[in-house]
Amino acid sequence: MRAQNLTLLTDLYELTMMQGYFKNPTDQVVVFDAFYRKNPSGGAYAIMAGLDQVIEYIRDLHFSPDDVDYLRSLHMFDEDFLEYLRGFHFTGDIYAIPEGTVIFPREPLVKVIAPVMEAQLVETALLNIINHQCLIATKASRVCYAAQGDGVMEFGLRRAQGPDAGIYGARAAMIGGCIGTSNVLTGKMFDVPVKGTHAHSWIMSFPDEYTAFKTYANLYPDACILLVDTYDVLESGIPNALRVFREMRDCGLSMKGYGIRIDSGDLAYLSKKAYDMLAAEGFEDAIISASSDLDEYLINSMKMQGAKVNSWGVGTKLITSNDCPAFGGVYKLAAIKRSGSEKFEPKIKLSENTEKVTNPGNKTIYRVYDKESGKIRADLICLAEETFDDQEDMILFDPHETWKKTKVKGGSYTLRELLVPIFKKGICVYTSPSVMEIRDICTHEKNTLWDESRRLVNPQTVYVDLSDKLYKMKSDLLEEMSNKALEE
Amino acid sequence: MRAQNLTLLTDLYELTMMQGYFKNPTDQVVVFDAFYRKNPSGGAYAIMAGLDQVIEYIRDLHFSPDDVDYLRSLHMFDEDFLEYLRGFHFTGDIYAIPEGTVIFPREPLVKVIAPVMEAQLVETALLNIINHQCLIATKASRVCYAAQGDGVMEFGLRRAQGPDAGIYGARAAMIGGCIGTSNVLTGKMFDVPVKGTHAHSWIMSFPDEYTAFKTYANLYPDACILLVDTYDVLESGIPNALRVFREMRDCGLSMKGYGIRIDSGDLAYLSKKAYDMLAAEGFEDAIISASSDLDEYLINSMKMQGAKVNSWGVGTKLITSNDCPAFGGVYKLAAIKRSGSEKFEPKIKLSENTEKVTNPGNKTIYRVYDKESGKIRADLICLAEETFDDQEDMILFDPHETWKKTKVKGGSYTLRELLVPIFKKGICVYTSPSVMEIRDICTHEKNTLWDESRRLVNPQTVYVDLSDKLYKMKSDLLEEMSNKALEE
Repeated sequence: MRAQNLTLLTDLYELTMMQGYFKNPTDQVVVFDAFYRKNPSGGAYAIMAGLDQVIEYIRDLHFSPDDVDYLRSLHMFDEDFLEYLRGFHFTGDIYAIPEGTVIFPREPLVKVIAPVMEAQLVETALLNIINHQCLIATKASRVCYAAQGDGVMEFGLRRAQGPDAGIYGARAAMIGGCIGTSNVLTGKMFDVPVKGTHAHSWIMSFPDEYTAFKTYANLYPDACILLVDTYDVLESGIPNALRVFREMRDCGLSMKGYGIRIDSGDLAYLSKKAYDMLAAEGFEDAIISASSDLDEYLINSMKMQGAKVNSWGVGTKLITSNDCPAFGGVYKLAAIKRSGSEKFEPKIKLSENTEKVTNPGNKTIYRVYDKESGKIRADLICLAEETFDDQEDMILFDPHETWKKTKVKGGSYTLRELLVPIFKKGICVYTSPSVMEIRDICTHEKNTLWDESRRLVNPQTVYVDLSDKLYKMKSDLLEEMSNKALEE
Repeated sequence: MRAQNLTLLTDLYELTMMQGYFKNPTDQVVVFDAFYRKNPSGGAYAIMAGLDQVIEYIRDLHFSPDDVDYLRSLHMFDEDFLEYLRGFHFTGDIYAIPEGTVIFPREPLVKVIAPVMEAQLVETALLNIINHQCLIATKASRVCYAAQGDGVMEFGLRRAQGPDAGIYGARAAMIGGCIGTSNVLTGKMFDVPVKGTHAHSWIMSFPDEYTAFKTYANLYPDACILLVDTYDVLESGIPNALRVFREMRDCGLSMKGYGIRIDSGDLAYLSKKAYDMLAAEGFEDAIISASSDLDEYLINSMKMQGAKVNSWGVGTKLITSNDCPAFGGVYKLAAIKRSGSEKFEPKIKLSENTEKVTNPGNKTIYRVYDKESGKIRADLICLAEETFDDQEDMILFDPHETWKKTKVKGGSYTLRELLVPIFKKGICVYTSPSVMEIRDICTHEKNTLWDESRRLVNPQTVYVDLSDKLYKMKSDLLEEMSNKALEE
């Protein structure tokens, strides 16, 4: 049976730590940030996705009697703690960047402010969901970019890493820019367009290719994309398809949404030859769809070669983000409010690697847009209580190479806070847009990137700066810890 | 809501083809083979996994009223076909290689014999499940091989491609040889060991590292693995851990299952230093666990460097099979029995690439073992009706380079048929072993490989041959199709 309740979709250590906090009560409220460190596939950005599933997960959090029995059977948990779990629900606040938004490394994508036990429990599933969908939405955005406006179809379900990877991967691929998916269940669950025609087996189950094509055309005259590579594209597939198209035209059919699909061989060469053969008989408006282990790099190369493809079917390499199959998001403690205190005490995680040192405190993010072009100038991570006046000059500096500074003149920019409230005291205060609405948001979002940051190879980094106040807090903390270490 | 009914977890084209067959009834019974072409990660074998989930999927196949309503809303399907779907269930036969078995390219892993509409529908989900679990079980087998008998823990849930990739990925990782998973839900669903201790956030939420360790040790004295890299492994983590271990020993605790985990830095160097520090105080039996983006290559390298690690935590790169995130299994029509006929007519899918030409006919597989060592000599794909006498000499030949031949003397080998019946006329006739039983089977199976075929880089290929009869059938079909093409 498929699991319906995902409350146990967590690492065991979240539960052992929870029991630890339960047995050593502190009434601490903590801030955890979910963020990532490196854009996938060498890009300069990623796309936020998966929030709606995080919301569903948080709303549904509860330990069923079954779950509690299972945990008891591990002989690690005491009855008082199990009793606590029986009544568990999430009571904290969550802020997040809305789905479809362009995101950058080190920005809190999701911020959880909650009693430490609750904030700890949700780590694993939250990361699992966000990591997966951000990864696939980002990959889809890259593939669609390479397709230069041609439609990209997602059809990787058979190669996805399990059912959910297919279902939610297709959801994320739609957000990233695909025009449809082959995955019927995703279509049903998220009301997105589903598409598909036939396989080689259809052709092979008929005595000959022409009969297979003809039968298909009679069935679906308005979506008649014929797969032409079962025997030989140029010698058999295209001639038989042409015969069927002529017959359709002779019958006075409107000839919309008709065409061919090529699934093997030299797609650039075959598509050009196929186009010539189609055009020679007046079928220059036919859809020429290509598939076969495509990704953004191959599509880009085919575009360079002048391939006459106007529709792309992308499977394995999109649904698995083949060249970078993990997003690498992490969930780090940023601040603690001890019982009785009003103030968050900032926390920092050291690392040998400067880039891996976390940003402390209860933070938010402002996006700085160029007022005239609407393009992103930079993002600014700051403390949640900070405010900025967009009429004042703003000095942005690189948090690692601090001598790199830019002044943004007051009045020339606009600001937008990226983190929005999702849960308040355990109650969901946010309504997710539909997937197709998120897809529209994402289209707009991608246009806020400068072209130089969208290209596939060696794109221009978008600066993510720290506010003066946050930078000082971080430096002071590092200094303090380093001094403390010297003393010991 | 998570989908419970996976019947719509299919590509739309399966349904458009089904309607095509429905409207052009043929009463055809077909044979489809699910097989793969290339071992992942450059290995010489893969591990079969996922069959139990395929069984569950087939048993549960049904179109709910909701599903039918959704399909109607697409305006592609007629009422008579939707009515047929309402009553749909699977009535065919399925044969498969049991989970945990060592498998090789081009072997039918699952064979479906069913009316064409049924056989077509199940393609996508069947491939999705098998592709995913075979991939991860194979990767786990490689990682465990590199660990040379040390325990390998799966803890990649947060980086898995969605919830199912975590749940079933952990299941597959257990089959492939892991000793436990951090994934509590997998533990509950499949009764496999779950393990885990604490995160950096646990350490950071206490005023100092010692207090964090001490609190943890008091809670879990029998499973006290302390994470020592939050501040500084050698300067702070190990000294604090030593202090706690001394205190535990002084209290007369049995000191079982205690030790440290290192999650960053130079693991080889740090583990050796840590071991020296532990051993100097009589803690040479402490567990030294390492984690941090490990895979089989890194573990192998650390073993070469004499790292003093005896427990490995492997996350991202195992749960995503990072260097090869798709298994590439396909599902191809192999034979058709037309209505009224008693005989399967073999079908072949041509391809420019000889290796991609499918094997026709209703087939099975025999594994040829060396009688003395129990190791695999070769696999033999043959027609289902063929029988062999293990007292007779057997000539094996490479199906591509046919001059490569070996004689296996009668009496020196044993034979085992790999495909076993799973469904007969739609009824499940197979009971899956438990995951831990499959894991045992897999351990035995891996020992049937010669060492040369297990190594990580450039392993020796295991031959998968065709029987004379199958080879002749294939050659004749190819000849016939090629002659037919010349005539046209």
